[in-house]
Amino acid sequence: MAKDKVPSSKSNITRDGFPASKKIYVKGKLHNIEVAMREIELTESKPMFTDGQFKKDVNPPVTVYDTSGPYTDPSKEIDVKKGIERIREQWIFDRSDVERLPELSSKYGIDRLKNSELDHLRFEHIKKPLRAKEGQNVSQLHYARKGIITPEMEYIAIRENQKIQEINEISKQHKGNSFGAKTPAFEITPEFVRDEVASGRAIIPANINHPEIEPMIIGRNFLVKINANIGNSAVTSSIEEEVEKMVWATRWGADTVMDLSTGKNIHETREWIIRNSPVPIGTVPIYQALEKVNGKAEELTWEIFKDTLIEQAEQGVDYFTIHAGVLLRYVPWTANRVTGIVSRGGSIMAKWCLAHHKENFLYTHFEEICEIMKAYDVSFSLGDGLRPGSIADANDRAQFGELETLGELTKVAWKHDVQTMIEGPGHVPMHMIKENMDKQLDACGEAPFYTLGPLTTDIAPGYDHITSGIGAAMIGWYGCAMLCYVTPKEHLGLPNRDDVKEGVITYKIAAHAADLAKGHPGAQYRDDALSKARFEFRWEDQFNLSLDPDTAKEYHDETLPSDNAKVAHFCSMCGPHFCSMKITQDVRDYAKEHGLDEESAIQEGMKEMSEEFKKKGADVYVEPEILHDNE
Amino acid sequence: MAKDKVPSSKSNITRDGFPASKKIYVKGKLHNIEVAMREIELTESKPMFTDGQFKKDVNPPVTVYDTSGPYTDPSKEIDVKKGIERIREQWIFDRSDVERLPELSSKYGIDRLKNSELDHLRFEHIKKPLRAKEGQNVSQLHYARKGIITPEMEYIAIRENQKIQEINEISKQHKGNSFGAKTPAFEITPEFVRDEVASGRAIIPANINHPEIEPMIIGRNFLVKINANIGNSAVTSSIEEEVEKMVWATRWGADTVMDLSTGKNIHETREWIIRNSPVPIGTVPIYQALEKVNGKAEELTWEIFKDTLIEQAEQGVDYFTIHAGVLLRYVPWTANRVTGIVSRGGSIMAKWCLAHHKENFLYTHFEEICEIMKAYDVSFSLGDGLRPGSIADANDRAQFGELETLGELTKVAWKHDVQTMIEGPGHVPMHMIKENMDKQLDACGEAPFYTLGPLTTDIAPGYDHITSGIGAAMIGWYGCAMLCYVTPKEHLGLPNRDDVKEGVITYKIAAHAADLAKGHPGAQYRDDALSKARFEFRWEDQFNLSLDPDTAKEYHDETLPSDNAKVAHFCSMCGPHFCSMKITQDVRDYAKEHGLDEESAIQEGMKEMSEEFKKKGADVYVEPEILHDNE
Repeated sequence: MAKDKVPSSKSNITRDGFPASKKIYVKGKLHNIEVAMREIELTESKPMFTDGQFKKDVNPPVTVYDTSGPYTDPSKEIDVKKGIERIREQWIFDRSDVERLPELSSKYGIDRLKNSELDHLRFEHIKKPLRAKEGQNVSQLHYARKGIITPEMEYIAIRENQKIQEINEISKQHKGNSFGAKTPAFEITPEFVRDEVASGRAIIPANINHPEIEPMIIGRNFLVKINANIGNSAVTSSIEEEVEKMVWATRWGADTVMDLSTGKNIHETREWIIRNSPVPIGTVPIYQALEKVNGKAEELTWEIFKDTLIEQAEQGVDYFTIHAGVLLRYVPWTANRVTGIVSRGGSIMAKWCLAHHKENFLYTHFEEICEIMKAYDVSFSLGDGLRPGSIADANDRAQFGELETLGELTKVAWKHDVQTMIEGPGHVPMHMIKENMDKQLDACGEAPFYTLGPLTTDIAPGYDHITSGIGAAMIGWYGCAMLCYVTPKEHLGLPNRDDVKEGVITYKIAAHAADLAKGHPGAQYRDDALSKARFEFRWEDQFNLSLDPDTAKEYHDETLPSDNAKVAHFCSMCGPHFCSMKITQDVRDYAKEHGLDEESAIQEGMKEMSEEFKKKGADVYVEPEILHDNE
Repeated sequence: MAKDKVPSSKSNITRDGFPASKKIYVKGKLHNIEVAMREIELTESKPMFTDGQFKKDVNPPVTVYDTSGPYTDPSKEIDVKKGIERIREQWIFDRSDVERLPELSSKYGIDRLKNSELDHLRFEHIKKPLRAKEGQNVSQLHYARKGIITPEMEYIAIRENQKIQEINEISKQHKGNSFGAKTPAFEITPEFVRDEVASGRAIIPANINHPEIEPMIIGRNFLVKINANIGNSAVTSSIEEEVEKMVWATRWGADTVMDLSTGKNIHETREWIIRNSPVPIGTVPIYQALEKVNGKAEELTWEIFKDTLIEQAEQGVDYFTIHAGVLLRYVPWTANRVTGIVSRGGSIMAKWCLAHHKENFLYTHFEEICEIMKAYDVSFSLGDGLRPGSIADANDRAQFGELETLGELTKVAWKHDVQTMIEGPGHVPMHMIKENMDKQLDACGEAPFYTLGPLTTDIAPGYDHITSGIGAAMIGWYGCAMLCYVTPKEHLGLPNRDDVKEGVITYKIAAHAADLAKGHPGAQYRDDALSKARFEFRWEDQFNLSLDPDTAKEYHDETLPSDNAKVAHFCSMCGPHFCSMKITQDVRDYAKEHGLDEESAIQEGMKEMSEEFKKKGADVYVEPEILHDNE
């Protein structure tokens, strides 16, 4: 793929739907909104002889949270050269607190726009930026504190519920399905979303210059979210690849995407990504600022950085990683670490601090940064520049010292009604993970935590999606709100398409495992539906309900490729004579057929049951043909 | 590959060594034993200007626990048609409590041996079996309780230590390496091994008819172990593939291998595997017993099963999964589960119980089974036939009812001095995992726990090595002694070579993460050595220290294939201008060069440090060239 190749209108952007799935849109009640979800249709169970008659279960469709945006909706026309639908634009204007600027506010942005050498790279339909009117604060936190339920908040409430009401209704109707009854009834309301945002416990990254997003929330009382990093570097990658990587990552479940580009044409690449992204985009502005001073950290200035913030805010970046906690006094604490400072942003600021022997300018100018953030509703992601880069360095005083400072800055940000989350490690062995979560909640007033992994061992480069997936699942359970993915290429190279998918799926697993452990309403519904399908040998349903239907089907077909095998009542692990699932079904059928349904027995207890079994079973257990399954 | 093709002498058995690695043999002190380990040689660090002079770190070789047996030792001649060296044979004879039988004791075994149609499949060098002399008990538990330290126990003590003494010595010498100092000094002694076995907290699976094994231990005060399942089925696979799968699995770290074959020629396949296996082999004898009655569970009898136990014990199987806890009264408790009974062995026994309306014959004949076990030193792996097959069914009363029974049986086994471990689930969400471990320790008197995962969500078929790796790491930390691997093909098909490797590596990660969290002596040494190599851009060392050097190198080379890149002081993620590791190194060099080594500062605390920094740094921080790294 040619370097810097921009996408053509149709391009190679992935638009395939998911099998047996359709996009549905649930309307709001407070606002004129349509919340996108994916509905997976299931087949009927095969008829079973139950309660004296043949019955078949109708398996209701399963609705799942969907991050893939319009790309998986075949009814939507998408031209990546124009960008996707700006669904939030009207909501933003309706608040009457923004104005369209006559031109960009960033000097750098203006220069890039004028540079005709970049014409071939430039997104064609760049709009003039929006900014808060003088004296206004356009952050979701500001609205929440004023008691306003924005369309974004209602969107999120509906989205997080995943049709909980319907699920509860189904549970009632299908009393026979043991899985239905396990779904809790708790429903997330728009008021609850507002209150969580108002308290600072959750954020809604939603720049007024990124109206394309489907609103989402990051907070520990909601579904655990995941972030995927993309970005070109000096060494490899192109614009077209990066846009497709974003689409690809959101297809598999990335809730936000960070563009960590460090090569040339960062500005233009970012525009393409934002204009086509249905999920919030995060960046680390110091990366681009450093490019502007040719990689010389000590030449960075507040002015260059500030211009970069404004440049990116006006493009629509939804959250900024700001390494304002890397204080001069903490830097020497990293000198005896096994792996020093591994955060790029952290090491840049450490270098700057040492070179100038001054305090970190991100720290000293923090309130000015807040003023920019609230004019566009960019959220803080306060960076952990001193996070540990190895098991040996986990939970040391450099790390926790910085965390205290991030807590201090959180309170400053909140004073300005700027939404804030906190970044966390990194490399941490399992027994030291919980301390991270506890300390973060305490130091940062319950602001959402957003961690990279953590990796639970250092010995498996090539498999760090797994070493970190373990830590991610655990910290998600403990209360971490968003998990930054790690791909198999971590520490080794830049992830390709397959790596991005592997990383995203691994992190969807971690996040979902955490949702289950936290008891998020409705989380277990999909597990139960899939397990029921598995038990009933509804192979296609099992594939379709899985996080990655393509891979599930492909693996199955490697052993038993025929279509017959997908309706067969055995699986390739055991062969036709020997399937425990089939045997269990026989046991169950038999028990039911002979009036041995155990609902009553369960009440009576073990001992009585055993006696009843003997009494009833004495003469019926002599028909072994009923029990075995030689085809 | 032709079905039932037996391996030729050289065959396709993998014999490649690991990069920069050699096999070393550490001699015993009590016994004439040589304990195999792998030593990874490292390169020197590049010279660093430290304390006023250029110094380079000599990085001592790292010794790692090695399950790959003689296959990775190029000095060993291996002919798979003859089997590998019988290193324990003399140890066994020296105890004078066994006798060589004139022929097999199993009727089935004798018939197979006589059947000339099987000649082409048969392992050529079958020896007559050993059995305990009349009235003798040859179990390691029996010896331990008599206060004997067997060669197996000393072997294990040396093996588990991974040269802790040397590590401690190195730590002292290399005070400058911060990683050295973190290694605890606790050393595992032969006496400790004996005491753990005597108490029942650990087992040494070591059938007297499997003298080829390098002894290993399963117990929660030792390194967490992993098991890999292999085995052909009615649907696919051949003998040659199975032998190579065993070699392949142990190469990547399988501590034991279970042969779960269910197709034809189970008996012959098993002989090939055992004769060539340096690790203990486990089986589920009921699978073969069922084959003998053509898959009709209700036709199983104690006599057929007993003959199968003896047949397999005389071949050298080291542990048997016995589903003796599936009691008649528990079976109805599974009727309303989402996924009923998913254990094959469990469902077979459930079917038998219902068909005959009798108690499980494995339970009623349990003491007779003990008599067989102790005559060959086969260990029990008490099967969890009622383990949950879905999140919905986790920790239910069927599961925990059976666990109570397994506890009762453990005490019976111990009465006979038969080594015993307990199998566990399965599918369990994170927040319900610890209860499994706690209940198991309590019910089973601290006998080792051996779990399958557990899978922490059901929604990711195709990725169940990961869904389960999360649960495995956690339960390992909580005290589980051995983790049964799950491959990406779980629920979908039979694992191939790549799947076996993926499953094994994932479980090595889980086990090692657990060792770190438990604080196993020496576990962190490898992490620290790898992280130091990473930090110093010793790429080859980083690959060589990893669990899978091939994959680490391959991933690196995808982005930066040249040899130059492997000595480059930047990585592909950031490019030459922008590497945080490089920047950190500059910071550290700079601090050291200017006498700012922070050992003292660390003592003085944050505030003083800051002042000292200002004092010392005022005029030295004006040389920015030292700090940046434009190549």
